Amino acid sequence: MIVELISIGTELLLGNIINTNSNYLSQKCAQLGFSMYHQVTIGDNEARLLDAMSAAIKRSDIIILTGGLGPTSDDITKETIAKALQRRIIMDEHSQKRIQSYLDRIITDNDMIPKELRKITENNWKQAFKIENSIVIDNKYGTAPGSIIEDGDKTIILLPGPPSEMIPMFEHSILPYLKKFQDKVFVSRMIKICGIGESTAETLVIDLIENQGNPTIAPYAKCGEVHFRITAEANNDEEGIALINPIINEMKSRFGNNIYSTRENEALEEVVVRLLIDKKLTLVTAESCTGGLLSGRIVNVVGASDVFMEGLITYSNHAKMKYLNVKPMTLKRDGAVSKETAKEMAIGAIEASGCDVSIAITGIAGPGGGTVEKPVGLVYISCYINAKTFVVERYFKGSREKIREQSVVAALDLIRRSILEVYS
Amino acid sequence: MIVELISIGTELLLGNIINTNSNYLSQKCAQLGFSMYHQVTIGDNEARLLDAMSAAIKRSDIIILTGGLGPTSDDITKETIAKALQRRIIMDEHSQKRIQSYLDRIITDNDMIPKELRKITENNWKQAFKIENSIVIDNKYGTAPGSIIEDGDKTIILLPGPPSEMIPMFEHSILPYLKKFQDKVFVSRMIKICGIGESTAETLVIDLIENQGNPTIAPYAKCGEVHFRITAEANNDEEGIALINPIINEMKSRFGNNIYSTRENEALEEVVVRLLIDKKLTLVTAESCTGGLLSGRIVNVVGASDVFMEGLITYSNHAKMKYLNVKPMTLKRDGAVSKETAKEMAIGAIEASGCDVSIAITGIAGPGGGTVEKPVGLVYISCYINAKTFVVERYFKGSREKIREQSVVAALDLIRRSILEVYS
Repeated sequence: MIVELISIGTELLLGNIINTNSNYLSQKCAQLGFSMYHQVTIGDNEARLLDAMSAAIKRSDIIILTGGLGPTSDDITKETIAKALQRRIIMDEHSQKRIQSYLDRIITDNDMIPKELRKITENNWKQAFKIENSIVIDNKYGTAPGSIIEDGDKTIILLPGPPSEMIPMFEHSILPYLKKFQDKVFVSRMIKICGIGESTAETLVIDLIENQGNPTIAPYAKCGEVHFRITAEANNDEEGIALINPIINEMKSRFGNNIYSTRENEALEEVVVRLLIDKKLTLVTAESCTGGLLSGRIVNVVGASDVFMEGLITYSNHAKMKYLNVKPMTLKRDGAVSKETAKEMAIGAIEASGCDVSIAITGIAGPGGGTVEKPVGLVYISCYINAKTFVVERYFKGSREKIREQSVVAALDLIRRSILEVYS
Repeated sequence: MIVELISIGTELLLGNIINTNSNYLSQKCAQLGFSMYHQVTIGDNEARLLDAMSAAIKRSDIIILTGGLGPTSDDITKETIAKALQRRIIMDEHSQKRIQSYLDRIITDNDMIPKELRKITENNWKQAFKIENSIVIDNKYGTAPGSIIEDGDKTIILLPGPPSEMIPMFEHSILPYLKKFQDKVFVSRMIKICGIGESTAETLVIDLIENQGNPTIAPYAKCGEVHFRITAEANNDEEGIALINPIINEMKSRFGNNIYSTRENEALEEVVVRLLIDKKLTLVTAESCTGGLLSGRIVNVVGASDVFMEGLITYSNHAKMKYLNVKPMTLKRDGAVSKETAKEMAIGAIEASGCDVSIAITGIAGPGGGTVEKPVGLVYISCYINAKTFVVERYFKGSREKIREQSVVAALDLIRRSILEVYS
């Protein structure tokens, strides 16, 4: 099946919003095994939408349009598609009722809006109309229903523009519908690596990449991490997994401990929290240059409160001495950004908290503060566990934010590696 | 001038990457006053690129193509455009030299890559060729040069796909070139608001929005904030500013203290840090449910180290008592998520740190931990300054991350409002 996307919205052409809908729908269509050759973005303009539709109908089997389903007179997608397909627009009572109850909830009963402004405007009912003989798709998070129109051997799908409405609608209603067009499956697995750079990682498996067929191997660089996606095209899931497994095993043997996960949706911080829970260890953080970003990433993991007890953001030298017992002599002799200070921070955090594992970060995020010996980007990270202190020195490149982000990834990775080493 | 974007890359059609280039270029073209009616995305395919070019040439004056300039045989943009314009491809010695020196730096002299793999492959020289009579644009961050081709009254611009190469090239070379086509200017200013919701904010200026002409007023909702962009079309900057100022003044009088900035690039945390610096105040944070995210956002501001001294992430009740001196009785009677605990955290942080201002957050980010009386999303924030304690109770909606993000914004806003109140 050939699928084409038409995104409608002047805000896209003006650059006010990023077209994440196209990205999302492209991924979903690729997973369904559909081919996509064109994505088109136009404004809310009848003539240009008719043109785009006429081109799309000639070259594609399924056309997915997003946007232009709103209540204002600018929103003309439904009306224009009806015109393109020579169909009538008729009132849909089911949608009318849903819109009434939705608007009651957000306008009529909303105390935040002054009473005199709490009225449903006439143009809202525009959204209750549907294209004749179309399948109406309910919108759980807004007033604009979607629709599926079957027209001979072509399928036209209209979806609302806001991703918060479009994505749930696609997941719940469009995806199950589209499965009937599927004639093959794509199975994919991830190899997620941290601690080595992208070019080094690629070089280690360059022969696999160069000789790829089915499955394919696609590398992606993420801040401080490298991911490889292995995708097999097959007749069913079992066949796909059988094709993928030998590659996964080969990569595991080459990358070893540098792989932190092979699960699609598992982030590094989740692996760290899972390891801490498994080993029944509590964690304390001591952050200088990252100023809370490491802790903030850890607490985003569901279940983090079982292992993460407290964190000390010791941005000033004074705070490093007061909370972490870093020696004035160490700060004077080696500096706040040094292997020794990182170590003392890690040990001090254990003493202050009584936790099992500590992680300490001190570095120069810039833009100021760098010297020839200690340039911007120099970061020391230390992990204390079971009377052992691990410490790494890293030189990161990029902006202030980038240096911090890489420091956080390196710190999470150090916790992971330290636990693996102590408990291996 | 009518400009059209053609994005080239199979990775876009597969959804592997988000098309941020189109967004960036749309913004820049809108600022230049150009009209944009079409954006097209296709793969690295000659027939489809020829088709797209032939449509674009008919309907647009300037065509900007991104992607497909790389060294591999898949990359066919330059060759296909030459074909479309019936021009030859010739070797460009200047580019050849640049590519040699660039590759020496990242491959030949790179110790991270095993010696036997450090060779420049033949296909890299493909990038040294240029379209006859085109202007070659140097690439400071990669090997693919860009180009500008003037063809009668049409202008075709080829840019590399990676945003890290495309954006600097556009800023430094393409933008100055395009200014010659500019016949009007667009001047815009922002009104950035926090502390009131989007619908409330819009309602307060609904008459201005409904009667807008030149300037236009466009609202955007950001997590916990609402921004209005006021844009005037004018013959020159002075004229534009004169058109905008009355609207800005009217909005200032309506929104008052809810406006935290009117500067395009100024974030809420920057305003807070600037206020602290102005008033010579030091800051300490005490975070429970946000676990370091507030501090992490503050330290991202250049100059934060002058005012932000330390932070205490007291995730456990034990840590709240130990570092912040929250009374066991308060935790028992009112709970860790209560007005009283927030206040005691704020006062305790001042006592522990000796800072001038403290901000404390305690709440239920979910997904677990909510009850009927204290649902997920309930957050208390307290700010202590000059012997005054301010405290707010908020009910946020959304995911764990969303609740945290809104809490951080509300906390920054409370610091801002508290300082303004105490120092007014």
